[in-house]
Amino acid sequence: MTVSHLRFGRDPIRSTYLVEPGMAGFVACHQTVFTERYDLLAHAAPGGVFLLNTPEPPERVWDSLPESLRAGIADKGLKLWVIDAYRVAQEAGMGRRINTIMQTCFFAISGILPRQEAISAIKHAVDKTYGKKSKRLADLNYQAIDMTLANLHPVVIPAQAGIQEATSSTPAFPHAGTSAGVTDLPAFVRDVTLPIYRGHGDRLPVSLMPVDGTFPVDTARFEKRNIALEIPVWEADLCTQCGKCVFVCPHSAIRARAFPAELAANAPASFKHVPARSKDYPPGTHISYQVAPEDCTGCGDCVEACPIHDKSNVSRLAVNMAPIGPLREPERDNYAFFLSLPEFDRAAVKHGTIPGSMLLDPLFEYSGACAGCGETPYIRLATQLFGDRMMIANATGCSSIYGGNLPTTPYTVNAEGKGPTWSNSLFEDNAEFGLGMRLAADQLMDYAKVLVKELATELGGDLAAALLDADQREEAGLHAQRHRVAALSEKLATSSHARAKELASVAEWLIRRSVWIVGGDGWAYDIGYGGLDHVLALPYDVNILVLDTEVYSNTGGQTSKATPLGAVAKFSAGGKATAKKDLAKLASDYGHVYVATVAYGAKDTQTLRVFHEAEAYAGPSLIVAYSPCIAHGVDMLYNQRQQDLAVKSGHWPLFRFDPRLAEAGGNPFKLDSAAPSQPIKAFMDSETRFAMLARSHPEASERFLAEAQKAAERRFKAYQELAQGHPDATKTGA
Amino acid sequence: MTVSHLRFGRDPIRSTYLVEPGMAGFVACHQTVFTERYDLLAHAAPGGVFLLNTPEPPERVWDSLPESLRAGIADKGLKLWVIDAYRVAQEAGMGRRINTIMQTCFFAISGILPRQEAISAIKHAVDKTYGKKSKRLADLNYQAIDMTLANLHPVVIPAQAGIQEATSSTPAFPHAGTSAGVTDLPAFVRDVTLPIYRGHGDRLPVSLMPVDGTFPVDTARFEKRNIALEIPVWEADLCTQCGKCVFVCPHSAIRARAFPAELAANAPASFKHVPARSKDYPPGTHISYQVAPEDCTGCGDCVEACPIHDKSNVSRLAVNMAPIGPLREPERDNYAFFLSLPEFDRAAVKHGTIPGSMLLDPLFEYSGACAGCGETPYIRLATQLFGDRMMIANATGCSSIYGGNLPTTPYTVNAEGKGPTWSNSLFEDNAEFGLGMRLAADQLMDYAKVLVKELATELGGDLAAALLDADQREEAGLHAQRHRVAALSEKLATSSHARAKELASVAEWLIRRSVWIVGGDGWAYDIGYGGLDHVLALPYDVNILVLDTEVYSNTGGQTSKATPLGAVAKFSAGGKATAKKDLAKLASDYGHVYVATVAYGAKDTQTLRVFHEAEAYAGPSLIVAYSPCIAHGVDMLYNQRQQDLAVKSGHWPLFRFDPRLAEAGGNPFKLDSAAPSQPIKAFMDSETRFAMLARSHPEASERFLAEAQKAAERRFKAYQELAQGHPDATKTGA
Ligand code: SF4
Ligand code: SF4
Ligand code: SF4
Ligand code: SF4
Repeated sequence: MTVSHLRFGRDPIRSTYLVEPGMAGFVACHQTVFTERYDLLAHAAPGGVFLLNTPEPPERVWDSLPESLRAGIADKGLKLWVIDAYRVAQEAGMGRRINTIMQTCFFAISGILPRQEAISAIKHAVDKTYGKKSKRLADLNYQAIDMTLANLHPVVIPAQAGIQEATSSTPAFPHAGTSAGVTDLPAFVRDVTLPIYRGHGDRLPVSLMPVDGTFPVDTARFEKRNIALEIPVWEADLCTQCGKCVFVCPHSAIRARAFPAELAANAPASFKHVPARSKDYPPGTHISYQVAPEDCTGCGDCVEACPIHDKSNVSRLAVNMAPIGPLREPERDNYAFFLSLPEFDRAAVKHGTIPGSMLLDPLFEYSGACAGCGETPYIRLATQLFGDRMMIANATGCSSIYGGNLPTTPYTVNAEGKGPTWSNSLFEDNAEFGLGMRLAADQLMDYAKVLVKELATELGGDLAAALLDADQREEAGLHAQRHRVAALSEKLATSSHARAKELASVAEWLIRRSVWIVGGDGWAYDIGYGGLDHVLALPYDVNILVLDTEVYSNTGGQTSKATPLGAVAKFSAGGKATAKKDLAKLASDYGHVYVATVAYGAKDTQTLRVFHEAEAYAGPSLIVAYSPCIAHGVDMLYNQRQQDLAVKSGHWPLFRFDPRLAEAGGNPFKLDSAAPSQPIKAFMDSETRFAMLARSHPEASERFLAEAQKAAERRFKAYQELAQGHPDATKTGA
Repeated sequence: MTVSHLRFGRDPIRSTYLVEPGMAGFVACHQTVFTERYDLLAHAAPGGVFLLNTPEPPERVWDSLPESLRAGIADKGLKLWVIDAYRVAQEAGMGRRINTIMQTCFFAISGILPRQEAISAIKHAVDKTYGKKSKRLADLNYQAIDMTLANLHPVVIPAQAGIQEATSSTPAFPHAGTSAGVTDLPAFVRDVTLPIYRGHGDRLPVSLMPVDGTFPVDTARFEKRNIALEIPVWEADLCTQCGKCVFVCPHSAIRARAFPAELAANAPASFKHVPARSKDYPPGTHISYQVAPEDCTGCGDCVEACPIHDKSNVSRLAVNMAPIGPLREPERDNYAFFLSLPEFDRAAVKHGTIPGSMLLDPLFEYSGACAGCGETPYIRLATQLFGDRMMIANATGCSSIYGGNLPTTPYTVNAEGKGPTWSNSLFEDNAEFGLGMRLAADQLMDYAKVLVKELATELGGDLAAALLDADQREEAGLHAQRHRVAALSEKLATSSHARAKELASVAEWLIRRSVWIVGGDGWAYDIGYGGLDHVLALPYDVNILVLDTEVYSNTGGQTSKATPLGAVAKFSAGGKATAKKDLAKLASDYGHVYVATVAYGAKDTQTLRVFHEAEAYAGPSLIVAYSPCIAHGVDMLYNQRQQDLAVKSGHWPLFRFDPRLAEAGGNPFKLDSAAPSQPIKAFMDSETRFAMLARSHPEASERFLAEAQKAAERRFKAYQELAQGHPDATKTGA
């Protein structure tokens, strides 16, 4: 939630202070759900105006409001105005963008300016903002302004309001204690997380803060943001169980689980499950694809990803969006039941396939990233595959904000209570920070091995030898080692050896840790590149995941070295004049680095394969992941389509450089995407970051387009030559 | 000069303070020349010991000492011991390394330990230091110790010493007022530079310090370090006037000048000059190659570079080393006369040839870099070609230390008083710092152009147009613009236009500035790489010169990403296990960067060409310059030989990547060195940094050698493919 304090006056206001409680002449709430969550009227002045965005019609609004809010309005004698801003936006062709609409309401009813004057001022502002870039956008905004005024209504407040006794506090986390997955709040969540969440962090005593700054994970699930207007509905009969909907969900809000049919005996009546189609599971295995209705953002990406439609009704897919209203309650119960089912045996799951890997529980869920975010699916995927062994160094940027969105965190734990270790470091040292995690984990493993050797006789020579010599590069070996460590811990618990306790304290480190160094392009291409290069140059086993949005996303869209030629961004108002830096190619020049470019929306199987290969490689790995972002100026519903266009147009060729292939005498360079089948124009025209230039700087736009087309062809050709060329020609390090 | 304060005692000494004046029981002076320069005895305690390294035999030492020193010794009743350490080192086969010798003297006469015990301790230390690395070095040191003891002599002090009145101050800069090129000291040099130089900086009032930290340049010439035991003697009859001796001199201490013969009418009798052999000069032009006897370090590199020998006596070259004794006085006068001759018309000089370019005055001279330094010739060359237009951003490292060796600076000015602008910045931001210089210079030029347009009528449309449209990429265009700016300044001086004065203040900026970003490999490959990459990615016109010693030289030899596979350095005691980063190749991946590798000792004409091409290119240029360093463990006399071996063995292939060629439709990649004609072993065996591993880790050494051989072959092959390949295949930026 963002709270903005605005002050107006004829004379300049020389103050940096917030509006005081009880002093705001106008209060607006842009999300209906906040009425259940926050004390919205604390700052309202008696006799002021309260504006609410709500889907309820004006005549029913009053009854729909929480008791405490009604009492506040009546007590302070506020004038209540309402608008259904999402409906207006939809009807005005603006999708889910309500900023112009809410702003229009403000000027229409706040009395800051005479109404007519205010409306012309807004229209003038629209001209200034969109006029040059897009006539279409300007027209849409004009239309939205007119429709807003037609849909803004005062609410008549019943005479007896305010006389009834009202509860004075807003509820805790909405539905806490009743919602799916939430039965009882842990003490820390109740005493620390919740007050901060409700905006009262400044009232907490310092003594409640974790002394070392460590925050408990597994808390985003308490948020239940309930921001989706529509959620996906699974059609079990049509579904081929391909797992693509799960694979693309940026919020881990649609999930798959396979289980013995009998476990569903007591399921809620509306819980859907069908026999698993794959021969990989024992007979009697059922499968369910279930939405988390209160965590889903309604982005629609899962539906866009679904490849199956009803032959008798092509607009009906195997998963479809539907208004949440009637679905919220039953799906909440279904999801709670779904979560109560056990995860399918990880040793039996086919990790290398999309349907298989999507049965693995994500340990990153319900993040507050933008609806339809192009980054989060990569992180979710990594936590599914390597979750409880992961140590994550996260550079500052979007991924550190949604990754450690205190007071809640989307990182969570598996049924054994184990999950990724996560920490955020600076833009300028994150690669080094992650390298430190690697060195620490290796030291601890080495120390544990020293102790195992010391206690070898006590433990039994076979166990000791197996523990020491374990090949843990791949899933099977890791699985075996986990069993050995469990056996070791059991033996140690009853051992009287003087060093048994010491070994027990580090035994877990005998399982290979998976170190991930994560960040955006601003970090990897620019500010943190020096350190990233340093870590790449070293032989240590780290996995570097670059979430490439091609722009500084979190700070508001500044140009980075990842920004493509001709894209408009801050500091590149006339289109970026230099080419995108080819980070993946540069890294592959080292020769000993596993490198890949991925775009799951274009080729999800390649993405999955890359994550496995990178993690299994014993040296440094770099995955450069194409990540659509709202800064691209495209509806995030089309996240995957844009990825596909990026690859098909040659903007984002997919390749893998695997040093293991060179060691085996082969060519380490594999080209994973076909020659461009679309002109680069098809891609650039589909995103506002490029398209707006055609209006503002038509000549430059033409020139960039031609240059980009040539560069894409040249680059693909160069890649093709590497893929065909002599194996040694690609390794130039001396 | 380095002054070390050592304290010994039976009990631990808990103090960080220096030895107080008058409290040192032992004072040693390792360089004879210091006796003329510093107050050596201020710290000596009465009755203590004074040890002097001097070539004078013991019986003549006393008379050779400056009056003030004799008085000090007598007054304090010091015991005087002498040794001719350089002779001992030479005879013991240790070249010019006197550290073991001086240390032996110290233990032999200081009385810290009983003499015999001390000597065994030193021998033990030798074993520890060299025993593992090289039996030969250990033996040499043993021998040196024994010879030291045989050559260490007490000096009998005449009875009447100390009774005579002595001058109480040491001389100013030695020979100030008499020495070549120094007639009178400028006020700043007299009041600030000199006191700091003499070690009395702490006595200066703050008011004497430059308020903005700017120090005057042109001051290294006052030092007259006089450290050469031998200096080059030019044989005018043999010399082909090729200029190679000038090209390689790290200290700008041998120079060439062409001049009308009549100017030599009043030359000192021993001044050598002969008719210029080249047809490029008018009839009657003479030429002289002249040494600066008091600035030469005696490194011998010029003699090593000379390609001409006397057919009747092959050991006689066109330039030969000879003891300085009898040469000092006459050559000092010859050099003073040489400097009084005018620089040959820069417009008439052939800048593109070695003999031609070496007639250009260096604006970097007599630096305090190690004798035979492999870095400084590159800097000297740049100042010869672009000197008075240069703005230099210098990263911290060797080049910033010898480049701004306060209180003196080796950067100097031409006859018009113009020279490079120089400043030192941090390891981590030097590329950005230099970019700022570029932007500032461009802004000033743009502003000057605005004013020229404003005053166009006043100035005459032709001059204004010519000033504005000048093509200044190459020397001829620059020359023309200089003339125009001179004409402009003249007109402005008499103009009554209101803005004439303003334009006059920025007129100089109409001449294109040459921005150089300079540093070592620690900066370019490691700590400053992020910024360097950022500047490379931008389209601005900067020239980046990387002085690649393949190790952190200035801080004592730590491993950098430029350190080659198998080299021993700090943090790589067992040989560096990863390959050298191919910085030049990485930069060429951008496509719009001019990139070249150079090694003047291998191919001086290519080096010269690269400097011209880089400077003329209107975008970013990167020159990666191979720079032998004492840290390589090789006598710097063989500076050029090592460069040649590095290239011939494939360790350092020479290439140029010129984006202008690609723009013209050609292949931008040019390979400038032939396929390796020597095994990499020949190179590695010749340098201690590699060779010592064969002793300490023979197996690793073998393995590295084999790997390095393979890598060198692979790399050359990859380069060959780029050089032959399709022009577009080398540009992968998209
Ligand atoms: S609509 Fe979006 S958030 Fe909701 S389940 Fe589908 S992909 Fe996930
Ligand atoms: S994407 Fe469609 S077919 Fe695939 S699992 Fe999801 S609902 Fe089923
Ligand atoms: S001996 Fe060395 S310092 Fe002296 S002139 Fe020759 S190259 Fe220069
Ligand atoms: S290197 Fe030798 S031949 Fe060449 S200019 Fe110098 S002295 Fe003459």
